[in-house]
Amino acid sequence: MNDRARRKIAVTPRSRPAMYDAMCAAVVAGGGELADVADASALMWADPAAADEFPGVVAAAPQIEWVQLPYAGIENFADNLDPARQWTCGKGVYAEPVAEHVICLTLAGFRYLHEAIPATSWPVQKGRNLLGANVTIFGGGGITESLVRLLEPWGTRVTVVRRSTEPFDGATRTVAFVDRLDAVAGADVVVLAAALTDETRGMVDAEFLDAMADHAWLVNVARGGHVKTDDLVAALRAGSIGGAALDVTDPEPLSDGHALWDIPNCIITPHVANTPEMGLPLIAERVRANVERWIRGDELIGPVDVSVGY
Amino acid sequence: MNDRARRKIAVTPRSRPAMYDAMCAAVVAGGGELADVADASALMWADPAAADEFPGVVAAAPQIEWVQLPYAGIENFADNLDPARQWTCGKGVYAEPVAEHVICLTLAGFRYLHEAIPATSWPVQKGRNLLGANVTIFGGGGITESLVRLLEPWGTRVTVVRRSTEPFDGATRTVAFVDRLDAVAGADVVVLAAALTDETRGMVDAEFLDAMADHAWLVNVARGGHVKTDDLVAALRAGSIGGAALDVTDPEPLSDGHALWDIPNCIITPHVANTPEMGLPLIAERVRANVERWIRGDELIGPVDVSVGY
Repeated sequence: MNDRARRKIAVTPRSRPAMYDAMCAAVVAGGGELADVADASALMWADPAAADEFPGVVAAAPQIEWVQLPYAGIENFADNLDPARQWTCGKGVYAEPVAEHVICLTLAGFRYLHEAIPATSWPVQKGRNLLGANVTIFGGGGITESLVRLLEPWGTRVTVVRRSTEPFDGATRTVAFVDRLDAVAGADVVVLAAALTDETRGMVDAEFLDAMADHAWLVNVARGGHVKTDDLVAALRAGSIGGAALDVTDPEPLSDGHALWDIPNCIITPHVANTPEMGLPLIAERVRANVERWIRGDELIGPVDVSVGY
Repeated sequence: MNDRARRKIAVTPRSRPAMYDAMCAAVVAGGGELADVADASALMWADPAAADEFPGVVAAAPQIEWVQLPYAGIENFADNLDPARQWTCGKGVYAEPVAEHVICLTLAGFRYLHEAIPATSWPVQKGRNLLGANVTIFGGGGITESLVRLLEPWGTRVTVVRRSTEPFDGATRTVAFVDRLDAVAGADVVVLAAALTDETRGMVDAEFLDAMADHAWLVNVARGGHVKTDDLVAALRAGSIGGAALDVTDPEPLSDGHALWDIPNCIITPHVANTPEMGLPLIAERVRANVERWIRGDELIGPVDVSVGY
């Protein structure tokens, strides 16, 4: 394929106008030329919900060599990934806003925004720094990668707790899940960013909370099920931890009248670490970067392994 | 002076025990040996408030070649800086927590913590990213330097507004103060980090606020006097900006019953961007680094220009 032909990129469908427009702009920003599906070398799929029409569109365009999918999870597309083409997805893109929210929640706790925001009189001066703090993160996936990257200039000491003790890039130390209480003990903030599995369900129990320092914050951006909510309520009431900032809860949504609403040092956000609006500019930037790479013939970011389906 | 003599470092006075202890530990961590003032090659001054006894102690120890002062502002010591010695201070050290607080306040606004924290029922899902945002910072000093450094991994476009148009290291663009409304117009957040001067006093007035985007946040960690409070109250009530997060106010402390307390999208913290507790580990780290440099004979960080007194 010559350079001219390679530049021709299709964006479809149009069922989600905001994503369609953002992807078209990203293709142009990356040096591509917008083209019909029948004429294009590559296809940017612009609606994660429109998986039904996907097989037909792709089958009708055998000349398409590369397909970019919009989300990180591609369950709905996985049965239609033809190994003769290249496939990429939004892998890693959506972890960034979640990592940002971890920093937001941690700083909110350390800086006593839970006391300052409701105040109607000049509050007592106090606060603690994230700069130089000990951060323990559960999970060794994309969110942790992004978080380690964002924390880089803060001079924090990062402990990653994961299944294996394989060193996590950028972490000060990596601790195996079985030794998790050691990793919790010295932390100023404990961040939950792990997938929910049989092993991690309910891991934040009375013993775990007891191992935390009495000034330490618990930040959960993963799944509410990691935490035994009753044990957390008890720890907060007893003052045995500094506070909890939860973007996910169990039950979720947290029911009206639940004890957590009334605990001052429990900050609750409604599962907004990543919203669809936040993801749009991020996937657009991924599309721009990949189009640029495609035209240059460079390796693409976020490749899907067709044999395993993610 | 031989190496052995150079390692001998005095820390005094003891009137502020936490700072005294931290500085002693830092001297040792930097490779120094604690010594009496009469035997030391260098002196770490451990109480910013004890300026009265300072001239006497220093005059009685003519062999002292280097004096480290504890704060960035050295007004109280400036009359007693002998040009035959080297002088260093806490320059730049205290900017870091302030820059951290800017990120805390910006994220709190972008992530709607002012709505989530007081909520007693699952809130509406919304939010905006600092990742990739347009950040306009007033002031080209240490806070801006630290803020640019902390923001580096966030992919923000930073505009610095300062007196001159001399490019600010790490900023996407630098705008002269006279053209400030241009710099305000495209910003998602406008950060005030400038010294209060006749020029900047009241600069955030109705016209300035009107130039801001209706989703943009104003973050003030500098001085309350930069802002015409009545104009800010009017803009917040009219919904012409996204919100304001103020660590400094005019009047300060903000009086009970002031209109700002009741405006939901106005976040007020009680001048805690940097607290004495936060500064302690930071000045200790500066002492450690400088002692290490002193012993090696390297250039010291944070030198005071004796001829100008800062």
